[in-house]
Amino acid sequence: MNEKLSFACDYAKGAHPNILRRMMETNLIKTAGYGFDEISESARDKIRKACECERATVEFLVGGTQTNAVIIDALLRSYQGVIAAETGHISVHEAGAIEANGHKVLTIPHQYGKISACAVEKYLDDYYNDANHEHMVMPGMVYLSHPTEYGTLYSKAELQAFRNVCDKYKIYLYVDGARLAYALSCLENDVTLKCLAELCDAFYIGGTKCGALFGEAVVVPKPEEMPHLFTIIKQHGALLAKGRLLGIQFDELFRDDLYMKIGKSAIEAAERITRALQEKGYRLYFESPTNQIFVIIENDALKKLGEKVEYSFWEKYDDNHTVIRFATDWGTTEAEANALIDIL
Amino acid sequence: MNEKLSFACDYAKGAHPNILRRMMETNLIKTAGYGFDEISESARDKIRKACECERATVEFLVGGTQTNAVIIDALLRSYQGVIAAETGHISVHEAGAIEANGHKVLTIPHQYGKISACAVEKYLDDYYNDANHEHMVMPGMVYLSHPTEYGTLYSKAELQAFRNVCDKYKIYLYVDGARLAYALSCLENDVTLKCLAELCDAFYIGGTKCGALFGEAVVVPKPEEMPHLFTIIKQHGALLAKGRLLGIQFDELFRDDLYMKIGKSAIEAAERITRALQEKGYRLYFESPTNQIFVIIENDALKKLGEKVEYSFWEKYDDNHTVIRFATDWGTTEAEANALIDIL
Amino acid sequence: MNEKLSFACDYAKGAHPNILRRMMETNLIKTAGYGFDEISESARDKIRKACECERATVEFLVGGTQTNAVIIDALLRSYQGVIAAETGHISVHEAGAIEANGHKVLTIPHQYGKISACAVEKYLDDYYNDANHEHMVMPGMVYLSHPTEYGTLYSKAELQAFRNVCDKYKIYLYVDGARLAYALSCLENDVTLKCLAELCDAFYIGGTKCGALFGEAVVVPKPEEMPHLFTIIKQHGALLAKGRLLGIQFDELFRDDLYMKIGKSAIEAAERITRALQEKGYRLYFESPTNQIFVIIENDALKKLGEKVEYSFWEKYDDNHTVIRFATDWGTTEAEANALIDIL
Amino acid sequence: MNEKLSFACDYAKGAHPNILRRMMETNLIKTAGYGFDEISESARDKIRKACECERATVEFLVGGTQTNAVIIDALLRSYQGVIAAETGHISVHEAGAIEANGHKVLTIPHQYGKISACAVEKYLDDYYNDANHEHMVMPGMVYLSHPTEYGTLYSKAELQAFRNVCDKYKIYLYVDGARLAYALSCLENDVTLKCLAELCDAFYIGGTKCGALFGEAVVVPKPEEMPHLFTIIKQHGALLAKGRLLGIQFDELFRDDLYMKIGKSAIEAAERITRALQEKGYRLYFESPTNQIFVIIENDALKKLGEKVEYSFWEKYDDNHTVIRFATDWGTTEAEANALIDIL
Repeated sequence: MNEKLSFACDYAKGAHPNILRRMMETNLIKTAGYGFDEISESARDKIRKACECERATVEFLVGGTQTNAVIIDALLRSYQGVIAAETGHISVHEAGAIEANGHKVLTIPHQYGKISACAVEKYLDDYYNDANHEHMVMPGMVYLSHPTEYGTLYSKAELQAFRNVCDKYKIYLYVDGARLAYALSCLENDVTLKCLAELCDAFYIGGTKCGALFGEAVVVPKPEEMPHLFTIIKQHGALLAKGRLLGIQFDELFRDDLYMKIGKSAIEAAERITRALQEKGYRLYFESPTNQIFVIIENDALKKLGEKVEYSFWEKYDDNHTVIRFATDWGTTEAEANALIDIL
Repeated sequence: MNEKLSFACDYAKGAHPNILRRMMETNLIKTAGYGFDEISESARDKIRKACECERATVEFLVGGTQTNAVIIDALLRSYQGVIAAETGHISVHEAGAIEANGHKVLTIPHQYGKISACAVEKYLDDYYNDANHEHMVMPGMVYLSHPTEYGTLYSKAELQAFRNVCDKYKIYLYVDGARLAYALSCLENDVTLKCLAELCDAFYIGGTKCGALFGEAVVVPKPEEMPHLFTIIKQHGALLAKGRLLGIQFDELFRDDLYMKIGKSAIEAAERITRALQEKGYRLYFESPTNQIFVIIENDALKKLGEKVEYSFWEKYDDNHTVIRFATDWGTTEAEANALIDIL
Repeated sequence: MNEKLSFACDYAKGAHPNILRRMMETNLIKTAGYGFDEISESARDKIRKACECERATVEFLVGGTQTNAVIIDALLRSYQGVIAAETGHISVHEAGAIEANGHKVLTIPHQYGKISACAVEKYLDDYYNDANHEHMVMPGMVYLSHPTEYGTLYSKAELQAFRNVCDKYKIYLYVDGARLAYALSCLENDVTLKCLAELCDAFYIGGTKCGALFGEAVVVPKPEEMPHLFTIIKQHGALLAKGRLLGIQFDELFRDDLYMKIGKSAIEAAERITRALQEKGYRLYFESPTNQIFVIIENDALKKLGEKVEYSFWEKYDDNHTVIRFATDWGTTEAEANALIDIL
Repeated sequence: MNEKLSFACDYAKGAHPNILRRMMETNLIKTAGYGFDEISESARDKIRKACECERATVEFLVGGTQTNAVIIDALLRSYQGVIAAETGHISVHEAGAIEANGHKVLTIPHQYGKISACAVEKYLDDYYNDANHEHMVMPGMVYLSHPTEYGTLYSKAELQAFRNVCDKYKIYLYVDGARLAYALSCLENDVTLKCLAELCDAFYIGGTKCGALFGEAVVVPKPEEMPHLFTIIKQHGALLAKGRLLGIQFDELFRDDLYMKIGKSAIEAAERITRALQEKGYRLYFESPTNQIFVIIENDALKKLGEKVEYSFWEKYDDNHTVIRFATDWGTTEAEANALIDIL
């Protein structure tokens, strides 16, 4: 177990104590399996309410890559691919999970993790104007992450623009919300759950990186767009026998605004650390608004820092500098943030 | 939550209390993700020792269908299929997870869930003697479950016979141990973990149905047969971010023989219920030696029974009778068993 | 090249001379690729007329396994499987081509290659009545071959019954017509091309075994059921660059009733051989109405026969007898049939 | 049928007359199917001799996309991807055929269709140095085309450099030779068939674009690297029943150096047209050494040209200019080349 201070990622601890407590309380109750239990049903209801979308299908999956693979496979036809940022999680860090189901990831350039509706529209225009487009993979969906892998955010207006392009070309819009808590609680953010339910064909509310032991809640606002999701989940080996465990995660996260509170505390910690970095003269790679902090650091200084703190390598900046990432999370304490600031 | 007595399955409760306690104790510790933590390492060591196979690869996955899909895909080449009983879990109840990865399940008839090495040998002989066999799916593996879906057991001699056939045809032998605890603790059983490690190319030690919250421990005695397993797991969406949760399940299950104790108590409960059934004149479908009890019951009597106890429908026996299944598990209490016996 | 008399299969020669002549005549003309040429267009028109279905999509593919894989993949969703006879070509002799695209072949028992609408209905009833059916592969299509692999035929009434079951369960009906010429020209047959176009969601008119060099013509009576077929064909590696070659095959086969004439001559040859076999006291395995003849033959006699004629091994009958198959084809001459009869 | 002069592609006509003649001569001979005939065997022998590799496996497939899909799937494991130029045929114009089999195409930038061994080495270095590389698709092969999609050529030294990188990282090298005739006959080219057999794990000799009706000849110098290729071909729906047709294509192409002669005549025609373009003041996009000519042309001039000649759109150059492609082929006559030159 780690004795060093760690800001390497947002999934290094267990779960929010409320979740563990609920697991203890309900441990010996016998329930139906596969999510057909009352706790899961309660969690689904809370999420439907939070999204202001009573008719949505809500299903719980264990992890993010799994969720992306299942949902993309559920929406696309065998001959379709998914448009994503070059830096999208599905483009790089899912070991080809999307392609394993036969779907090409069609990448477009990004700016700090974001792509634009304009670029997507151009991609689609070019595709349909290409005389050979029937020899190419047909784009069937746009994949966004919110926040992105760089912690950046889309605005509601930007999402609306994606929706418009998707409507124009009759393709799906899907949002990966692995770190959604950290967007929802961010001042710059104007994208609510309701807004996601209105604009997306599917999105997921991340649990693993936002205080749960594990689990992601998929929301499908128009269930008729994704029939037989249960069987698809099973086929992907993604059905949890004791489904109530996932129900517990989200029934607690969506009780008394816990999900928002978790996001808020992580963002505040990130802001304090960011201010300290700036005061101490560190150069930020760019200002990321959520729970991830990207710093350009001189290589010798980095070596020293690494003796005391765990961080995440992001990329080489130049021969003498490196971009590193600190991540705060639901469980970052004031003491931890202070300890990091002292070290910097 | 269920107020009726339930013997419908062996995954209706949470986890053995030791596991939950460990989760509480370690909740706020920060560890590396994806199974690179010390708890997982400790669990792997314990399993290697229990299998008397120091060089085995041990990896933890979340569920059984997922494990079967990952391991079968890891061992087979794209043009190979897997031989299994018609009643094998992969043949029927995995929603085509094996085929989703491109592998045909090649079924052969069963007797109470078991197949014979002889039948497998005949299948392979017929295949290679068929002038058109290169137009057919090449069998690349034998899949067994131990205990089977009917709770029946293979003997060590039977496993050895499968091994011999597999060696003769240079194909893999894989054992699905979703309910392995209930085999290991069974008097009739002579198949130990060591024996599995000696005879199989891969097998898994079931957690979900044997006292864990979730989790299956894959053992690959000769790691060189399954290179890049980590990436394969990731590609299948089967990598748990907080991998230590899986480590905790198995570090506890393999501490102080807990796994064996769990199996033993479920079997004893099953035996008591079986004896009571016999004494009360019920007709057993067949005598299943592990934690599942199969009873032939008259339909009107069944209706009444169903008001007080949850059972699992197995199959129609004739127009007036039905085969049902009771399952005991790690958490079946004496009180529950007595309550069932009273009702019968 | 073969000097022995050969009745081993119906694809041992090249093509009907009309086809080769047309290839010679058009060889130096430059046309658009991929089937966008005038010859292919003409062939499509002729087929639409023959099917009395002006709006049908008609596409040409190279071979039968390829066609089955493409069409089944085009119609099914990722979580669906296809119901077929245990003896169906897709079940046995396509090396897992259907599973390679992720679709399980769900087999039901056959009688001389045929299955019944009743058995399919029971399969579907059982599926939907099984409480666990969502854990199983969802049947999405019925696959028939006409003639079957045993040369047997469905009646129009039988096809209508399949259509009714498919409508009841909202699944597709697909007919593999690899040897369709031999059905259409058969007196017992009342299934016309028009009838196939009315009752099926897709079917194919076999070329390879019916006088073409290669090629199968897929007919999709309701094109809206199979959008983007061109891209699906390309994705399967099944798009022929010089598509006009396929156009030539079918433009000739459907000129002046050639397809029917080819079927008729093969059937007449088969009938003459069958009568001769009966007169000479041979035992037929069963009476197959089309171009395949199944004979039970004593093993020593078979050995002798094999010195003079190539036949196809069908299956072991008992320890002393074997079932063999003779196949006539579009190119079987009277001289060849007489030579075989003389030998028998 | 086309009355306009056409230089749009190299597969607009039928086949070299020698091939058609052989098809006529052998049409009524009965042979074994699936490539087990003597003509195919003869063609294989000729190709083995031409490659100076007696032990090579040689198999014939129908088309290029099909061949790429089959060979890449045969060599890669399920978790591996293939490195290719962004402009590689597999990256763009195969409708996702590679991904349909579960393999990601890992693209790197190109220069006129070529990539460098250096860039591949950097890609592999970066991959293995990335701490998260096990979460990414493992590169298992390098795909080159020779000539490239731009008609450019690799030198023997360049191929050797790729081989060295592949050896260093223990991955496969595969060369797509769809237009190989036009490389082999080119003065600038020093890559022989022997050289390909020495340096590649697999490559194919293109027939479709080089004078055959259809067909590509796969060469696997070390057969033990690709066991069960026949079954893999069948599983991909890529097995031609009348396999001798493919045998005929290559038995003729490799008789009396026809393959080289075909290449030579196309290159000479291309050179004449190129010289004429330069003399008439046209601007070449770049000087492509084989049978493809890339010209930058003013849009109004293009419109006029298009009335008399079919060309292939390549890409937009700027708002007023377009890059177009002319392709000569095995069948381009002197008269056709002159007619084009007159029009220019």
